[in-house]
Formats: sequence, C-alpha cells, structure tokens
Amino acid sequence: MLPRTEELRELVEAYLAELAFTPELAPLEPALRHSLGGKRVRPVLCLATGDAVGASPQQLLPAAAAVELVHSFSLVHDDLPALDDDRERRGAPSVWAAHGEATAILAGDALLGEAMRLALGYPTPAVARELVDATLKMIGGQQLDLQGGVELERLHALKTGALFGASIMCGLWAADVPAAEHGPWRSFAAEVGLLFQIVDDVLDGDGYVLVVGEDGARRLADEAAERARARLDEVGGDTEVLRSIVDDLAVRTV
Amino acid sequence: MLPRTEELRELVEAYLAELAFTPELAPLEPALRHSLGGKRVRPVLCLATGDAVGASPQQLLPAAAAVELVHSFSLVHDDLPALDDDRERRGAPSVWAAHGEATAILAGDALLGEAMRLALGYPTPAVARELVDATLKMIGGQQLDLQGGVELERLHALKTGALFGASIMCGLWAADVPAAEHGPWRSFAAEVGLLFQIVDDVLDGDGYVLVVGEDGARRLADEAAERARARLDEVGGDTEVLRSIVDDLAVRTV
Repeated sequence: MLPRTEELRELVEAYLAELAFTPELAPLEPALRHSLGGKRVRPVLCLATGDAVGASPQQLLPAAAAVELVHSFSLVHDDLPALDDDRERRGAPSVWAAHGEATAILAGDALLGEAMRLALGYPTPAVARELVDATLKMIGGQQLDLQGGVELERLHALKTGALFGASIMCGLWAADVPAAEHGPWRSFAAEVGLLFQIVDDVLDGDGYVLVVGEDGARRLADEAAERARARLDEVGGDTEVLRSIVDDLAVRTV
Repeated sequence: MLPRTEELRELVEAYLAELAFTPELAPLEPALRHSLGGKRVRPVLCLATGDAVGASPQQLLPAAAAVELVHSFSLVHDDLPALDDDRERRGAPSVWAAHGEATAILAGDALLGEAMRLALGYPTPAVARELVDATLKMIGGQQLDLQGGVELERLHALKTGALFGASIMCGLWAADVPAAEHGPWRSFAAEVGLLFQIVDDVLDGDGYVLVVGEDGARRLADEAAERARARLDEVGGDTEVLRSIVDDLAVRTV
C-alpha cells in the first residue's frame, strides 16, 4: 500500500470518528458507531479519485463518508435474521446481535438517511443523485439474490459494482469535474467493482469460483485489473494512488 | 371536504398509480405497490400549500409523492415483527405478512431511496434536504419510543410532526418560495402535525387521551386548529384549501 493510500485511510477514519450525527439520532448513536467498522475501501477510492483530479480530501470527505454509510446501512440490514442471519461481522457481534433487531432496523434506516444528509451538503444535488441511484440498485440486487435464479454477473454489478462506481462518481461530482469528462471514469469504476467482487469470491470460495474455478476466477480478476489500468490511462491526471489501489485490490488476501 | 381537496387527492392517486420505480427495483414492485395505500393526508397538504402560493400541482407532485413514500417506508418498517409486530394495515395484511420479513425490510429501504430520488428531481437540493431532515427525526423518534420514558409531546413532534412539517416545507421549496418567507409556514406546519396527532390519539384512545382524558385531548386539538388558522392569516395567499384541510383534520373520525 502506498503511504498516500494509508494517509487517505487515516483521514477517513478521523472524519468518521468525529462525524456528528443528527442530534435526534442520539438514542441510536451506540448502534450507529458500532456499525461503522471496516476497511474503508470505498471512501479511500473516493478520496483517491479526488487526488487524480486535483481536489483536496477535505472537499471530498463528506461524499466519501456518505458512500461508507450506505455500505454500512446495507451490511446492518443484510445481517438481520430475516436476511442473512449473521450474528457476527468483522469478528464482533453484528449490530442486531449486539443491540437487538428493532434497533438494527432503525440504525440501518438512520445510516441511509445520514448518508443522504452528508451527500446533500454539496451545492449540487448530483452527489446525492449518484448515491441514491447506486443504493436503489443495491437494494434491487439484494431482493434478486433472495429470489435466486439470477445471473452472477448481473447480481454482482447491482450488489457491489453500483456502490463502487458511486465511490468514484460521487468523488468526481464533489470535485466539480464536469459530466462531459465522466465517461472513462464510469468504465473504470465498473472494472474496479468487478475486480473487488471476483477477489471477494476467491477469498470466500463462492460466487465466481463455483462457476469458473479458483484459477479461472483469478484470471478474470487479473483481466478486470488490466482493463481498470487501461481506463486510468484514458482519464489523465495523477492516477498513481488509484493504480496502486487497483494493484492492492488484485492481490488482497482479506 | 372541499371539491378542490378531493381533486388534489385524485391527482396524488393518479401520480402514485403511474409512478415508475427505478427499473432495478422490479423484483420488489409487488411489495412496493402493496405498501402505497392510505389517505394521502401528507401529499394533499403538500399540493394545497402549492395552491396557496400559486404553484401548480404538476410542479409539486414529485415532492408530494416523495413525502408519501417516506410515510410508507416508516409504516412498512414499523409493522415488522421486531418493531410493532402488526400483521394488518388498513384492513389488509401488512407488507411483511403478505411478502415476508426480508422483502418488507428491503421494500422499506427501497421506498426511502425512491423518495429521495423523487425529491432529488428538483434543481434545488432543498426539497431533498427538508425530507431527509424529517426522516431522520422520525427514525430517532421511533427509537426513543422503543426505549420508552420520553415525553409524549416530544415523541409526537419527532414521529408525526416532522413529516407533516416536511409535507408543507417541501411544497414551498418545490414551488420556489424563498426561505425568507418560510417562518410562519413552519409554525403552521408544526400546529397541523400536532393537530393530526392529537386527533389520532382521540380516535385510538391512547397517547394524549391517557394523559389529559378525551375531553382534554379534544380541547388541545381545537386549540391547535385555532393556532393553525391564525398562522394561515399570516402567510397570505389563497389559503382556502388549507383552511378546509385544518377543519377536516379537527373533526375527522377515521
């Protein structure tokens, strides 16, 4: 990991640690704080996008945090007994296991609301629009997954790719990059989402691994990483940090 | 009820019936449609606010629908077994009873997301900001209610008043009424929310009725209606429809 990537991660941690929730959410605060663990892949990607287009982390931190809160929202609800019934998350009790189901449902709702509030702090509604579009795709993907029988690639694009894409696109909007320049960025975002998901499947031994085997999945991941790097050649700017994140994602073991 | 109020209600019904959800939510569509019943008090209030300030219903319908979707979101999640455990809503099975808990959780999430998407269709982010602020208050109020021991008036302000207020305030923003003119409208909105909740308690025989008795609660409702009318004197414009809605709310029996 580049020192700059670690710097960005620390900025995200500090921002989230000091994030002031809406005062009326005070009774949910323990559950909300509990939910905000994780590797910060998405918000760091958002800030690294800012680095590439010359925007400061400060300008992008609310957007980066908003993406992370949507991610947390989805985990808190997915862990519920009616959905994945996961009592553990990141080696600790999941939110519902620690705080009860009712509080977990409300905490998930609150995380989604707070994410929107953060995204709506920008003068342009485009950050929030990008985020809500990704959120709706993710929710639709989760329901498709419940119902079963859907093609893996489409499921991953909805459940993982959309929010990965939003990490990058929200960063561009927050950095005031005009829409006319978004094209190659959207393609880059799609490849990064796919890369992340395939490697996830390799680490978990499911998804793509069940379809094409572990070696096949590793090959697909390498190809996605290669295409992501090619897209970065098109976007211009200083993409060193993004390149290094792509490299890290391709070889990650956790 | 004034003929104009009924006209506005029909416009809301038609708009909701034809509302196109995000395509990726197709697997949730039956649950989403199921959830959208109700008296349409909040969206009609939104459109009636438009009437008072000279804005067309067409201009306000997305905002009105957004408020109604947030209301539906809150009911779908509140009815869940972990929260109020209501198997029925409006004389029919609640969403979880009809479609299962997992789908109800996701359908609630989707309603909140779709509400934000509708509110974000305006050039100004103010409609969505107003809506998300009310939503966060409502969620905080629901958690306070779970924990118990909180003052009734504060609970009602969060759980009911905030979204009633947003019905009116989103209408003003959608109608491009400048913030400098919002003051008396906010006071009006607070009184209408209080009026609605007290009458609700009278009809249900709980809340305020348990504190001040039925006659006492009726008296509080009359006073709130009186203050709401006084606020309408301050806002100017053609407030006939809003006055009639206040009258209807004060004497409603369902």
